[in-house]
Amino acid sequence: MRATVMYAAGDVRVENVPDASLVEPTDALVRVTHACICGSDLWPYKTMERSDAGRHMGHEAIGMVEDVGADVRTLEPGDLVVMPFAFSDGTCVFCHEGLQTSCVHGSFFGTEDVAGAQADAVRVPQADGTLVVLPVDEDDALMPSLLTLSDVMGTGHHAAVAAHVGPGKTAAVVGDGAVGLCGVIAAKRLGAEQIIILGRHPDRIALAREFGATDVVSERGEEAIERVRDLTDGFGVHSVLECVGLEQSELTAIEIARPGGAVGRVGVPQDETMPASQPAFYNNVSVSGGPAPVRAYIEERPPDILGGKIEPGRVLDRVIGLDEAPDGYRAMNGREAIKVMIEP
Amino acid sequence: MRATVMYAAGDVRVENVPDASLVEPTDALVRVTHACICGSDLWPYKTMERSDAGRHMGHEAIGMVEDVGADVRTLEPGDLVVMPFAFSDGTCVFCHEGLQTSCVHGSFFGTEDVAGAQADAVRVPQADGTLVVLPVDEDDALMPSLLTLSDVMGTGHHAAVAAHVGPGKTAAVVGDGAVGLCGVIAAKRLGAEQIIILGRHPDRIALAREFGATDVVSERGEEAIERVRDLTDGFGVHSVLECVGLEQSELTAIEIARPGGAVGRVGVPQDETMPASQPAFYNNVSVSGGPAPVRAYIEERPPDILGGKIEPGRVLDRVIGLDEAPDGYRAMNGREAIKVMIEP
Repeated sequence: MRATVMYAAGDVRVENVPDASLVEPTDALVRVTHACICGSDLWPYKTMERSDAGRHMGHEAIGMVEDVGADVRTLEPGDLVVMPFAFSDGTCVFCHEGLQTSCVHGSFFGTEDVAGAQADAVRVPQADGTLVVLPVDEDDALMPSLLTLSDVMGTGHHAAVAAHVGPGKTAAVVGDGAVGLCGVIAAKRLGAEQIIILGRHPDRIALAREFGATDVVSERGEEAIERVRDLTDGFGVHSVLECVGLEQSELTAIEIARPGGAVGRVGVPQDETMPASQPAFYNNVSVSGGPAPVRAYIEERPPDILGGKIEPGRVLDRVIGLDEAPDGYRAMNGREAIKVMIEP
Repeated sequence: MRATVMYAAGDVRVENVPDASLVEPTDALVRVTHACICGSDLWPYKTMERSDAGRHMGHEAIGMVEDVGADVRTLEPGDLVVMPFAFSDGTCVFCHEGLQTSCVHGSFFGTEDVAGAQADAVRVPQADGTLVVLPVDEDDALMPSLLTLSDVMGTGHHAAVAAHVGPGKTAAVVGDGAVGLCGVIAAKRLGAEQIIILGRHPDRIALAREFGATDVVSERGEEAIERVRDLTDGFGVHSVLECVGLEQSELTAIEIARPGGAVGRVGVPQDETMPASQPAFYNNVSVSGGPAPVRAYIEERPPDILGGKIEPGRVLDRVIGLDEAPDGYRAMNGREAIKVMIEP
């Protein structure tokens, strides 16, 4: 089968690899019908050191179950399923608490240990706990929006939850990538009254406005902080969704939170330390978030998506075949596309 | 009158200074009957650069109202009052939200701008919003415990609230100073099932056990982290009360939080950045806290104190006169005393 393998920064190839197959009795084998390239895939695309074995990329997918292991009870061949970016057993203490990304038997797809979903097929460990059956056909028009449940929509929602977004509150979204745009959807869905997006790409900003952003701040650094304060009576916002993960964006996120406010981080932090510890402290700003337990959120979102109430699939503004994956990485990295969908 | 003035690290003097007096119509003039030296006073005691003007120290006090400004409505001479470490107007948006330490007209006592309470008398700005009348006489036996409402008991409680302590949860307290010990009281009061104290001073640990600590970890660094995990099925605790403020203690606090857990910071952070940003992120650990809005908490605690249910005043293990303040600093800095009470 074909799979997308990254060997070093900038070096992504689609190669023939051994077919994915069942290994554990709790596995499912899934033929991938839709996958994506993630903003977080761009971190190794920029920085990965050369690896002879390479890393099989991709952690977002919808696909058709082709085979299941002997211990799988809730799935059968022919089920159309959505795959969260992390697998989880569904039975451990953290899964019961709704934090499947900390499952004691779980981990992430598309790492050096577990092959990814930018491929013809993917082995899904802990299939019963991980996969969710979708009530549609694989060629449904809603497929892009349903695909965002595997990561970016759940991640944007997690940022909003961690940032304590609620009815009547003010929110700011740092970053206008696919996750930030889904964060705008989530903030509006949770009742935020004012939603400020910090970003500077006209196409993304236009989409953010359609999703519910009320204000746009295109400045950066100190100027961005001043602008947000000007827009919020000088105090800052109740809720900040940090959707980037760089020192500068985290600093901005903390500085634009109003006293007693909350920052929800979902941008994968690229540094060992977090900036602005003292401002966060003196203003009693909470900082939380992390890898989104999208498995917990998947079951909440489909009614909104199936009913057309939210359209997160609009962030997928380019569709390619699997063989074009290297060009998809190049396009996302060059900001030519917000997010790329792959139809193997 | 006499006041305690710090001129540089290690250089604290009791001096004759102009009498405190009313300046604004919203001020009260309070004769100090009881004050304290705070753990946070030891940071400048270790590091302050020489200042010709000096800094008038002290932010915790009980005292007798001697005079009030023309606009003060709720207080009168003869009232015995407790003074939170920050003053606040009681009317702004943040005061209404219970975050008086972010009052738009407030600030802290004992800074370079506002004289402190380790003195014969103190001017209290925003008196109506700041002071709380106590229903006891100034020689009441409960005075030490009531005095802790001005800072350390409210601060320990804030750490527990920020760390989401609740019934049946596991908690750890990093630091065995007066705030850490009050954190143990607060964690027990809020229903924590297991309370691990991280500290190594036998007298403090003994008091922590009396206050409700169930386990003691006297190791530091990696060893401390391992020990806490061993005590908690390998996962860490739900709630961590960070009562120190150093890089090492913050790192430990984050590392001993279980996935999805919470760190409540009340130790004044001594560094620009916070360590362990990535572990906090990958484990979805929230970090919050800051200067405690003790004004909001004062009205909740007195019933427990007046009824003898909690005895935070036991952290005040040395009583001195005002003239002995320099020796009180030396004793606290040398760990001869947990916390020093001053009776001017």
